[in-house]
Amino acid sequence: MDKIGIQESVKALSQLRSEGMHLDDFLLTWERSDDEIAATFAVAEIFRGMRQNNISARVFDSGLAISLFRDNSTRTRFSFASAANFLGLALQDLDEGKSQIAHGETVRETANMVSFMADVIGIRDDMYIGKGNAYMREVATAVQQGHEAGILEQRPTIVNLQCDIDHPTQSMADTLHLINHFGGVEKLRGKKIAMSWAYSPSYGKPLSVPQGVVGLMTRFGMDVVLAHPKGYEIMPEVEAVAKRNAAASGGSFVKTNSMEAAFEGADIVYPKSWAPFAAMEKRTDLYGNGDFESIKVLEKELLAQNAEFKKWECTESLMGQTREKKALYLHCLPADITGVSCDAGEVAASVFDRSRDPLYRQASYKPYIIAAMIFLARFKNPAGKLMDLLNAGFARIR
Amino acid sequence: MDKIGIQESVKALSQLRSEGMHLDDFLLTWERSDDEIAATFAVAEIFRGMRQNNISARVFDSGLAISLFRDNSTRTRFSFASAANFLGLALQDLDEGKSQIAHGETVRETANMVSFMADVIGIRDDMYIGKGNAYMREVATAVQQGHEAGILEQRPTIVNLQCDIDHPTQSMADTLHLINHFGGVEKLRGKKIAMSWAYSPSYGKPLSVPQGVVGLMTRFGMDVVLAHPKGYEIMPEVEAVAKRNAAASGGSFVKTNSMEAAFEGADIVYPKSWAPFAAMEKRTDLYGNGDFESIKVLEKELLAQNAEFKKWECTESLMGQTREKKALYLHCLPADITGVSCDAGEVAASVFDRSRDPLYRQASYKPYIIAAMIFLARFKNPAGKLMDLLNAGFARIR
Amino acid sequence: MDKIGIQESVKALSQLRSEGMHLDDFLLTWERSDDEIAATFAVAEIFRGMRQNNISARVFDSGLAISLFRDNSTRTRFSFASAANFLGLALQDLDEGKSQIAHGETVRETANMVSFMADVIGIRDDMYIGKGNAYMREVATAVQQGHEAGILEQRPTIVNLQCDIDHPTQSMADTLHLINHFGGVEKLRGKKIAMSWAYSPSYGKPLSVPQGVVGLMTRFGMDVVLAHPKGYEIMPEVEAVAKRNAAASGGSFVKTNSMEAAFEGADIVYPKSWAPFAAMEKRTDLYGNGDFESIKVLEKELLAQNAEFKKWECTESLMGQTREKKALYLHCLPADITGVSCDAGEVAASVFDRSRDPLYRQASYKPYIIAAMIFLARFKNPAGKLMDLLNAGFARIR
Repeated sequence: MDKIGIQESVKALSQLRSEGMHLDDFLLTWERSDDEIAATFAVAEIFRGMRQNNISARVFDSGLAISLFRDNSTRTRFSFASAANFLGLALQDLDEGKSQIAHGETVRETANMVSFMADVIGIRDDMYIGKGNAYMREVATAVQQGHEAGILEQRPTIVNLQCDIDHPTQSMADTLHLINHFGGVEKLRGKKIAMSWAYSPSYGKPLSVPQGVVGLMTRFGMDVVLAHPKGYEIMPEVEAVAKRNAAASGGSFVKTNSMEAAFEGADIVYPKSWAPFAAMEKRTDLYGNGDFESIKVLEKELLAQNAEFKKWECTESLMGQTREKKALYLHCLPADITGVSCDAGEVAASVFDRSRDPLYRQASYKPYIIAAMIFLARFKNPAGKLMDLLNAGFARIR
Repeated sequence: MDKIGIQESVKALSQLRSEGMHLDDFLLTWERSDDEIAATFAVAEIFRGMRQNNISARVFDSGLAISLFRDNSTRTRFSFASAANFLGLALQDLDEGKSQIAHGETVRETANMVSFMADVIGIRDDMYIGKGNAYMREVATAVQQGHEAGILEQRPTIVNLQCDIDHPTQSMADTLHLINHFGGVEKLRGKKIAMSWAYSPSYGKPLSVPQGVVGLMTRFGMDVVLAHPKGYEIMPEVEAVAKRNAAASGGSFVKTNSMEAAFEGADIVYPKSWAPFAAMEKRTDLYGNGDFESIKVLEKELLAQNAEFKKWECTESLMGQTREKKALYLHCLPADITGVSCDAGEVAASVFDRSRDPLYRQASYKPYIIAAMIFLARFKNPAGKLMDLLNAGFARIR
Repeated sequence: MDKIGIQESVKALSQLRSEGMHLDDFLLTWERSDDEIAATFAVAEIFRGMRQNNISARVFDSGLAISLFRDNSTRTRFSFASAANFLGLALQDLDEGKSQIAHGETVRETANMVSFMADVIGIRDDMYIGKGNAYMREVATAVQQGHEAGILEQRPTIVNLQCDIDHPTQSMADTLHLINHFGGVEKLRGKKIAMSWAYSPSYGKPLSVPQGVVGLMTRFGMDVVLAHPKGYEIMPEVEAVAKRNAAASGGSFVKTNSMEAAFEGADIVYPKSWAPFAAMEKRTDLYGNGDFESIKVLEKELLAQNAEFKKWECTESLMGQTREKKALYLHCLPADITGVSCDAGEVAASVFDRSRDPLYRQASYKPYIIAAMIFLARFKNPAGKLMDLLNAGFARIR
């Protein structure tokens, strides 16, 4: 995108109603209006264009971006760090092991204590059903109260970096990849995407990726197929969201227990392992009760259950059933690649290998998506602020 | 505070003699003159006003703020990170576990090796009596030598983020909270503060908070009462400081073994657990000798000793004895709250709960206090530099 | 250096052909031309002068510097952090323990995933012969591919922060120390340096320091003597480099098994422990096979072998054999000091102690060397860019 293209995009942005994002959090894509989703894509693309044209997007002279990762992360950690730095914020990681949180401190207290100079808090908390998103809302409530009580000079924005329900920075980056790959959001209409369960030798992977995908991609008139073996259902609330979205957008949302059926004629495939929702709920309860013996038993059962579905692998043969045999392969990475990272996994090595460049490109949108989420939450008139940045024209590399 | 208020504060600051802080460290409040203490409060408030008015205080275009935490920390860690970022410094944590310090390296060497581009070093070292403050002075001597020998281009400022003797960033933030709460430092004159020991199911908490409080708050004409069970004495040197301060300021410093007596008619209460000084000295010696068996025995003894004083709890009944039954409740946080973070603790849940907003506000001053300490150590003419910043008027959020 | 001196240095720099460094990595000093080595020294000195004159060198308004340390580090970690900050980049550490790399992810994938907004990646990987430098090249290839495929907007520069073969930021800083100590690079001609093995109670120290020293210092017409007990040979490829360099520069490269012979008349001594190359190769193979029993046996053998050479210590007596009894003592630090950090070590306490200031000065060049490496890789016309910075004259401390 050249400078004129950027300016046109800013003008288009100014037509979108995104003021609902101002001073709000980004927790679930389905809590955001179509205009807000479109504005997030628009700002992400404008930022990408600005960086390519060496125009600084540094809107903060100082300020902190707090990160809290309750699960391992490479991609999202670096994407959040990149987004914060891109806007001028310094990253400060909240390492619960080095803090005094074990001391019985409440969420409300910690949330306020780290936020005196924080403009954004990014949280990953995806391990337990019913916990992660609830935790983010507890943090949001706490900083809202703190701000209203005059304790916090500013009210930091919470960005969901993956919870038990949604993974919005992932699904938004995935969709922006599709928009760029197919040449525009309107080109997604009528495209068939297979969001399919796939076998992995591990167990207990979050449901937030498939849920995030069906909860978002049903909004663009796509034919979204969710495929999984019986017993690997996702949360019914999210299925309901997908149905509503599909009805509103003129697309469809279909479930199947056949990977083959899902791949048949698909334009896009997203084969990925996840844990059965019911089992994850049970596991959360067992953890709550400290019943570690039963957890071990459950884990064995789940691995045995998984092993029944080793044929749920994205093979060349399956890819051959897709539209013109060349569906776009998506994955949130890292993938379990058969013969590479495990003996049997989600995807055949040859499929993964020839998809590598587009896969990495898919991941490359995440820093811009996160920066856009932060930006739209902090600036009431985002188009005006972006025009200011373009007019100032400060160089990123001087 | 509006912009005119900020300018007036800067003018008032220019009347204070703070040049003794220039290129010096902040290790103990009682090493600093009354003007220097007043200047620190003034700069902290000016910084708070600047941030509220979106005026950037970024005086460093580059430079590092080194942090070294030898004990867990959330509040102080984030306050130091916030202060560094507010002034334009990048935080670099010295994690001794990831360094080569175990290699038998001297303090002198490490201090120089991390300081080539460091403008400030913040240290928490509060675990052992006789060690923490001494360590900070060893670092200060080392960087002074390094600077004089031409090895370090600049001589970084050491800021005490809690040692065995004092916790100056805490006591200064606490006092600034009182100044704002009561409407001016002169309003503190004649106010009664109860710095009281309180029961906690843990043991071995540093003495630096009560010592810091009685060592500082006796300077403002307050009636400072130190209350604790027999055997929980603080360091006699600090008691001597408090006595001298009280005599000079026209206040008083009284000790008692009755929590009730301390709370009686108090304007401010600060109930908080700490370890007996003598036991901590013994523990430090045992550690020095590697006598871990005796340490275990000592810990059991200390917990048993603690348990004798479970009634030292800040209850509603005790709060009812304070002035107009509404003394301001202080705590450095996190507190041991009865029925919340432990079965029996320092404070009743109802007292803590209705004090939450002012408690969090108390904590909110720490980033500004630390920023002021750094600023006054780096700029010879702080009022002039602040006026420059106001005149430049760069926005924090552009 | 005053401002006029800086400007003259920039003019001198403009005569050097350093364009080969642009968009390239810094992995081995002997891959860089004489002009490129000279340009690195020149930029490092210009940066040091700029900082002394409070002139900002902030060329990046945003951007990340990724660090990956697969071995402990204090000096290099802080030097890299300092260099990044000096240029305006934010440090982001890749902690493999907190990432998803264990998941079987490839180097190619991780390298791309962390690099979307990275301008530089600094890597320490010095534990296994045949692995570290190879890993850096794998990362370099990956980001090159990613950049060419349009995934990475910029192609980050890889800086070797110590590998199995070379430790270029160390040897370059060491040499810049010599240049300043002796008054110019031309003064190094004919100087004798003893790069000598020395006893340490530990084992398995990397060979990269002695290899880096003989691989670089042979380029300046020096008489480089490599001394070690039989069995402590360095990599033959690096010896070949040293020989070639010496022949080209008019210096010499000599090996000996006598510490005394090496020290005789030396202008500079660099006594330092390292592991035998052959044993390290064997150890790498054992690790590869997971044969931990044999590794334990090998470690015992190596410690026993080491113990035979306890007299290889840099004593006062040996220092008395050097030129005018006052050879400059070098060490990469931390040193094993007899009676200080160990019972018997690399150097006598009295020798180390009176060398402390120059030793710390030696270390002080590393941040500037690293900043120069980054700068020359990112800017095609470094002299022009530096002149821009001088003309802009922004203050580091405003």
